[in-house]
Amino acid sequence: MAATFSTTQRDDIVTTAHALADAARAAVLPHFRTAALAIDNKEPSGFDPVTDADRAAEAAMREVLAARRPQDAILGEEQDATPGTSGLTWVLDPIDGTRGFMAGAPTWGVLIALSDARNVHLGVIDQPYIGERFLGGLGCAEWTGPHGGGALRTRKTTSLGLATLMTTFPEVGTTEDRAAFTRVAHGVRLVRYGLDCYAYALLAAGQIDLVIEAGLHAYDIQAPIGVIEAAGGVVTDWEGGPVLHGGRAVAAATPELHAAALERLKG
Amino acid sequence: MAATFSTTQRDDIVTTAHALADAARAAVLPHFRTAALAIDNKEPSGFDPVTDADRAAEAAMREVLAARRPQDAILGEEQDATPGTSGLTWVLDPIDGTRGFMAGAPTWGVLIALSDARNVHLGVIDQPYIGERFLGGLGCAEWTGPHGGGALRTRKTTSLGLATLMTTFPEVGTTEDRAAFTRVAHGVRLVRYGLDCYAYALLAAGQIDLVIEAGLHAYDIQAPIGVIEAAGGVVTDWEGGPVLHGGRAVAAATPELHAAALERLKG
Repeated sequence: MAATFSTTQRDDIVTTAHALADAARAAVLPHFRTAALAIDNKEPSGFDPVTDADRAAEAAMREVLAARRPQDAILGEEQDATPGTSGLTWVLDPIDGTRGFMAGAPTWGVLIALSDARNVHLGVIDQPYIGERFLGGLGCAEWTGPHGGGALRTRKTTSLGLATLMTTFPEVGTTEDRAAFTRVAHGVRLVRYGLDCYAYALLAAGQIDLVIEAGLHAYDIQAPIGVIEAAGGVVTDWEGGPVLHGGRAVAAATPELHAAALERLKG
Repeated sequence: MAATFSTTQRDDIVTTAHALADAARAAVLPHFRTAALAIDNKEPSGFDPVTDADRAAEAAMREVLAARRPQDAILGEEQDATPGTSGLTWVLDPIDGTRGFMAGAPTWGVLIALSDARNVHLGVIDQPYIGERFLGGLGCAEWTGPHGGGALRTRKTTSLGLATLMTTFPEVGTTEDRAAFTRVAHGVRLVRYGLDCYAYALLAAGQIDLVIEAGLHAYDIQAPIGVIEAAGGVVTDWEGGPVLHGGRAVAAATPELHAAALERLKG
């Protein structure tokens, strides 16, 4: 994929991705853990809070793109899609893990990806409160945090029995989805819940081995795809096909572990 | 409770608590997210990893106490209890949330409490990686973090229907425990999982409303008791009695919410 970009293009894209993450951090942090957080309810039937912070961060990122790369399209969670002429789309989730955000937990993140119709070229998972950034794609696979940083590389785990699995909600997707998830969960060493997009960052950073989720949108999964693939991992839907347009995702540290998880998901 | 200590005594205790947390941070952080982490299995039948970091942090804290307050007893997770002559005991959990620690998640913490047989006088919840510290008791109720700090104060939530509930494992305690937990969970606005002791810190900081756990040891719950009570919250066992010696804990932002949770737990 990276071969289709010149060095100058790659540098501009990576620099733009950092500028987007910086802009989102500045827009979101003043809202985190403030008692006055204004919460709307997007779906009357459910509990899907959208905050001023979400909207402020997406607006800030769109300003960066308008100034730096007006030729690219934009797909964001909060605003209507913006068309482009380059064949490339920035896919933005200003706050992935809004419920974690509302609960004050530093497990939410800003998700930024650059993709075309078939491939994710770059992904960023940024956690503004901790001050951590995970970036993968176009030849990069690196993270920075409050105590330093380094290269992103997934673990070498190949068997479910040695794997640590994460997912956000114990109630994964439909009843059938949950049964499939449970089959995998019963075969692994350890299951942990609740970390939102931070789980994907931990997978790319070689701390855990598997993430399984359902009900994802494109903007939930494209940044994780970019980061994890650059770190050596595999991300597909539950049938082994592309998941960049959303749905049910399985992300694994190695191809062998990925295959084992797919087998269990099938039943 | 605080009235039994002079200002000089209080200052010495609070200064000692900070020194303990500082010592634990320095001992633990070099081990966090290192691939070479040596993991033992304390319980052959289960999965209870103990790391070098656990032992190093408790040893570092015991050195601080030997130098600063040799008159106090020590109850730690890793070493045998040390008797004292003051009637006061430092209760130490060098890494609460070892599984989160092993998964690279910044949801574990160093727990430090000072108590006598009946009361917790001071509690500290420290998250070394993020650089956050929550301290409550002896007239203090404060937190510091990477972007500042402030006073700890629980929320005003009085009804379950408006409450955010956290617990670490969906599998809470025994089958009966889990049924009781589920009754509460079905009545609240939002349930989140997996945050280990960080959930208690979020309750004290006014971000969430309820934490319910089972199977706790004294060293798991004494620091949360100190921090949350100082912030205005209530922490008891599931029958409403003292929980400082461990067991099943319910921590709530207000007495009204606490009473409502106890009612649901009873069935």
